[in-house]
Formats: sequence, structure tokens, C-alpha cells
Amino acid sequence: MNDLFLRACRREPVERPPIWIMRQAGRYLPEYRELRKKVDFVTLCKTPELATEATLQPIDRLGVDAAILFSDILVPAEAMGFKVDFNPGPVLDRAVRSAADVDAVRTPDAGEVAPYVYEAVRQIRRALDGRVPLIGFAAAPFTLAVYLVEGKGSKSFDRIKQMLFAEPALAHRLLDKIATLTEGYLLEQIRAGAQAVQLFDSWAGLLGPREYREFALRYARRVLDALRSAGVPRIYFALNNAHLLEDLRECGADVVGMDWRVPLDVATARLEHRFALQGNLDPCALMAPPATIRALAHDIVERGRTAPGHVFNLGHGILPDTPVEHAQALVEAVRESAR
Amino acid sequence: MNDLFLRACRREPVERPPIWIMRQAGRYLPEYRELRKKVDFVTLCKTPELATEATLQPIDRLGVDAAILFSDILVPAEAMGFKVDFNPGPVLDRAVRSAADVDAVRTPDAGEVAPYVYEAVRQIRRALDGRVPLIGFAAAPFTLAVYLVEGKGSKSFDRIKQMLFAEPALAHRLLDKIATLTEGYLLEQIRAGAQAVQLFDSWAGLLGPREYREFALRYARRVLDALRSAGVPRIYFALNNAHLLEDLRECGADVVGMDWRVPLDVATARLEHRFALQGNLDPCALMAPPATIRALAHDIVERGRTAPGHVFNLGHGILPDTPVEHAQALVEAVRESAR
Repeated sequence: MNDLFLRACRREPVERPPIWIMRQAGRYLPEYRELRKKVDFVTLCKTPELATEATLQPIDRLGVDAAILFSDILVPAEAMGFKVDFNPGPVLDRAVRSAADVDAVRTPDAGEVAPYVYEAVRQIRRALDGRVPLIGFAAAPFTLAVYLVEGKGSKSFDRIKQMLFAEPALAHRLLDKIATLTEGYLLEQIRAGAQAVQLFDSWAGLLGPREYREFALRYARRVLDALRSAGVPRIYFALNNAHLLEDLRECGADVVGMDWRVPLDVATARLEHRFALQGNLDPCALMAPPATIRALAHDIVERGRTAPGHVFNLGHGILPDTPVEHAQALVEAVRESAR
Repeated sequence: MNDLFLRACRREPVERPPIWIMRQAGRYLPEYRELRKKVDFVTLCKTPELATEATLQPIDRLGVDAAILFSDILVPAEAMGFKVDFNPGPVLDRAVRSAADVDAVRTPDAGEVAPYVYEAVRQIRRALDGRVPLIGFAAAPFTLAVYLVEGKGSKSFDRIKQMLFAEPALAHRLLDKIATLTEGYLLEQIRAGAQAVQLFDSWAGLLGPREYREFALRYARRVLDALRSAGVPRIYFALNNAHLLEDLRECGADVVGMDWRVPLDVATARLEHRFALQGNLDPCALMAPPATIRALAHDIVERGRTAPGHVFNLGHGILPDTPVEHAQALVEAVRESAR
């Protein structure tokens, strides 16, 4: 088995950085677009056979060093009592605003949150047959709370932030429920066979440090701590985290994900060399010619050497109109960095 | 005349920090909503008498220490050959994508960019009658380029970033044209009576440090340098700048605007105490009870004392559903900090 990814996460020696790509099973792949002609996104997430097919596509096409479960961070919202559509961003059938709304949020047992996800994990593990490790994932509690309170994606996210400032106790009740559910959801993924987990805190960067510590970091840490004894690497990815790096020292993860804003050598110094890092090429850089992609990738590999471990990735999801050959050039550039 | 604002910008001693509020003439004010019942946003911007009325509303209502021209950062786009609608965010009639599109961007003489803006500045100065100074403003070149290339506001701004990576020479040609126009546009505002200027680089924070230096900082600095001999304070506000603070040392402004992400004492240290700072209360904090607003404001005033000068402001525009009394409580809290 190719265990480069797991070794880098554990800060063990590796001959080169492993690479995987956020949203590596996505619309930039012709075979994924073919699959989506037959079924919509929700059906794809809910049908283990199809989720398995999508998950494996980039392993075959790009030769990345890890697979990530094909799913969506909004999946648990359904078990919490919401109807979620994708248009293409997530839209919920209602938004959490009042104490009654928070009370109405359901927290079913972990086994009932998304049985089709656990089944997908089992099928993917069988299909991978040890080629590369499988990463499970979930939204961090604050980020899921953003969607529940806003009701959809937003540009300014005023509603959630207004709740934090005007009704902090209500926000804590909601976050507590989400954190409990998320712990169980990820533990079930691990039980089903996930060999690492990533917690996506996509909207944490909207918060100033005080609010981040109180409403985001605290609950992300609770989830990550609950998973510690499961023994698999835990990645925490807070987008737009440049103002939060000193606080992130307390996140409790094994690996800290970095977007493209802070160079990895700067990040590892500010994180006191405590974590393996994951990142951090700007997804838009894959629009550049392959020679530029190679140069940018090599620069990131060099900076990544300063960290106790480095998993190469983009700083955010790959863009749908990325040329496949450019993604392949990136993987090749990281592979050749061993030479 | 109340010259607290100008003295703080110039890093001269002040008895308390001056305060103004981004979008202080806006929908949270009942008298502004009344005005908007009569005319749409574009008409308001283009009618000097009405722009004057809007500009003065918050001076009367809140007692802030500076006025800012009622206008929009997209105003110069019309003179460049675009039709701009607000819906409510800006939408352009076309987007700049090709070399021919860049060639077609017009760069009229400064006097022709927006004569109604210069007339508004003259009328506002007369109406203010020396009560408080008047701030003029424009978008920084990169931020205006974002709108011209995206064609509207965006969540991920892929188009502009793709241009930076895939066609950097084309991006530079566009930025060069915008910078030339912006220099003249702000000089005309100063000539008409603006006593300070702010350059809004609202989208600079999307860029990693390398792209920021090449495509945003360089052109912002060019505009700010061109204004130096005009002798008025120059404020540079790049939203989401936590990963750019070391680069910002080279921005050439007198005052650096800070959003709510980095505390002012941290910012001033990373900026090597070279600049007066402007900021930095989270606009969402104005949804909290007045006692909380006061405590948060006092904390910011304390941290601002570490900087060579401090202009109190929000970290971004005031939200439309902010209670007016909360905005008043903020101004009062900053005023009482002199005691």
C-alpha cells in the first residue's frame, strides 16, 4: 500500500510529499461529468456504488496518494431535520434563528446520521484494495452552524455573526448539538474504514480571534479530541486562517490545512513546528501553463520541508474548468520532487 | 473646525481617537431610507445636491468626526465605457476577458471621469462649513479590475485570478490603465476640496502574497505616491489583510485600514509602528447590546494607543439593519474614551 499520506500526517519520514486534491472527484474530470449526466449530486452522494465510482476516478486518472470520500459537508443536516438542495450551492428549507429553532434541531444517534455514507466508506475501501488510504470528512461545527443559520451560502454571513454577538448563549446551544452529532458521525466513518479524517472549517476565517476561539476553535477541538483515541490522522482545515495561526496551535489536530495565503514556511514557524501542514497551491494557479505550475509546486515543496510533515494539496477545491492535464502536471511535479 | 481626524491621520497628538463609520450614510439611517424612497442609488450618486444631503446625514445624527463623500467605487467604470447597475450589488453590462476588451477600456481625462462627483465635493464642503473634514475615495486598481473582469460581485473571483495566473501581461495592461485613471480621479477630488482620500482594496485579500505584491500593492502604491504631493492624508484599506501586513509596510499610505480580524496592537507591531491605523470593530458587533458595544470599543481604543495614530472605524461597512441607537452608542463610547 502507498502509505506516504499517512506517514506524512504522522510526521514520519517520507521520500516525497504525498499529494491529493480537494474536490479531486469533480467537474474538471470528464468521467465525473459523464456520471453527473446520469444522476444529480444528491443521488450521487446517497448511492454508495456511485459514490465509490466517483471517489476512485481521480485515483485512476491522476495517481494521487489519497482518496477522499465523495460526499458533502451538508449531508448531516438532513438527519438534523433539514431538507438540503444544491443549486449549485447548498440551500436549506429553513434557517435556524430562534431558541425554538435550535430546540427543533434533531441529534439522532451516529449510526442513523447517514448510513449510506458508512456503506460508501466500506465499499470504497474494498474497491481501493489498499492502493491508497481513504479520508473521511465532516464540516466543523461552526461551519455547519453557518449554513443552518444563514439557510444558504452567503457573501457576508451577517446572520450567524449577529447571533454570536447578540445571542451568544443560543449560538452555544446550537454548536453543542452540532459538535455532539459530528463526533459520532466521524467516529462511524472511521469504524466503517476511513483511515484519516478532515474537519472543514470553511467559514472560520470570517471571525475575529475572540469569536473564533469562543465559537469555532472550541467546538472543532472538541470533535478532534473525541477522535484522538480512534488513532487515525486528523486534519483541520480552516480557510482564510492567517489571523488565527497562533490560536490554531490549540486546535488538537495532527495536520493543519493551509489555503494559499500564508507560505508554508511562515505558517510552520507561527505554528511552532507542532503540526504537519497540508497545502497550499492557489487553485487558480492550475490555469497557468504547466511550466509555471511546476515552478510554483516546487516552491511549495521547498517551503513544506520546513514543517514536521507536508501533504501537498491545493489551498481550496479544484476549479471545474481546470484542464485535466494541468492537474496531472501538478501531480507529476510533486512526484518528481523526490528526485 | 474639528480636526481630530486629520491630526490622527498625520500621527499628531489627539485627546481621543476620532471616529467615522464606513457606509455611515446608509440604509440603517431612517432619513437615508426616506431619501432612497424618492431616488434610486445611481441618481443619488449623480445628483450633487442629493449626494450632499446623504453625506451630511450621519454628521448630524451621529456626530462623527469626518464626512465621506456619498458615492460608489464603481463610478469611474462608466467613464471607462461600462454601464453599471446596482441590483443591489454592482452588475456591469459586459466583462473584460480578452486583449481586445482591455484595449476597449477608455481612459478619459480626469476632469471628465465624473464631473458630478467633483461638484458634489464642492457642495459638501460648503454645506459642512468646516464642521468636520471631508474624505474622498476610489477603488484601488486591483479591486476595480476585479469588477471589470468578473462583471459583477462574485464569491470566488475565479475569473480575475485566472487572468493573473494565465495572462499576467494582459492583467498588467488593464491595471496600468485603471491606475492612471484613478490617480487623476482622486487628484480631481482633492482639487475640488477633499481633505483626505481613502483607497478601497476590497478584494486584495483574495490574493496570496506573491500575486498581491505584483498585481495589487504595486498599483495601489503608484496611486498613493501620485497623491503624496497633494498633501492630504491617504488611507489604504485592504480588507482581509492579515497575511499581507509585512507587504503593507511598502504601501506608501499615511493610514492603514484594518478589518476586525487582526487586533490593532498586533497590526501596529507587524507594520513596525510606521502607520496610523483605522478600524477595527466588527460591523456585526453593533448587533450586541450597547454595554457590550462599549466594552468592545474601549478594548479597541486601548489597543489603538499602541499605534502612532488611530482613527476609530468599523472593520467594514455598517450593516443596513443596525439599530441607529447602537451606532450612537459606539460614537459615544469612543468620545468618552478621552475622559
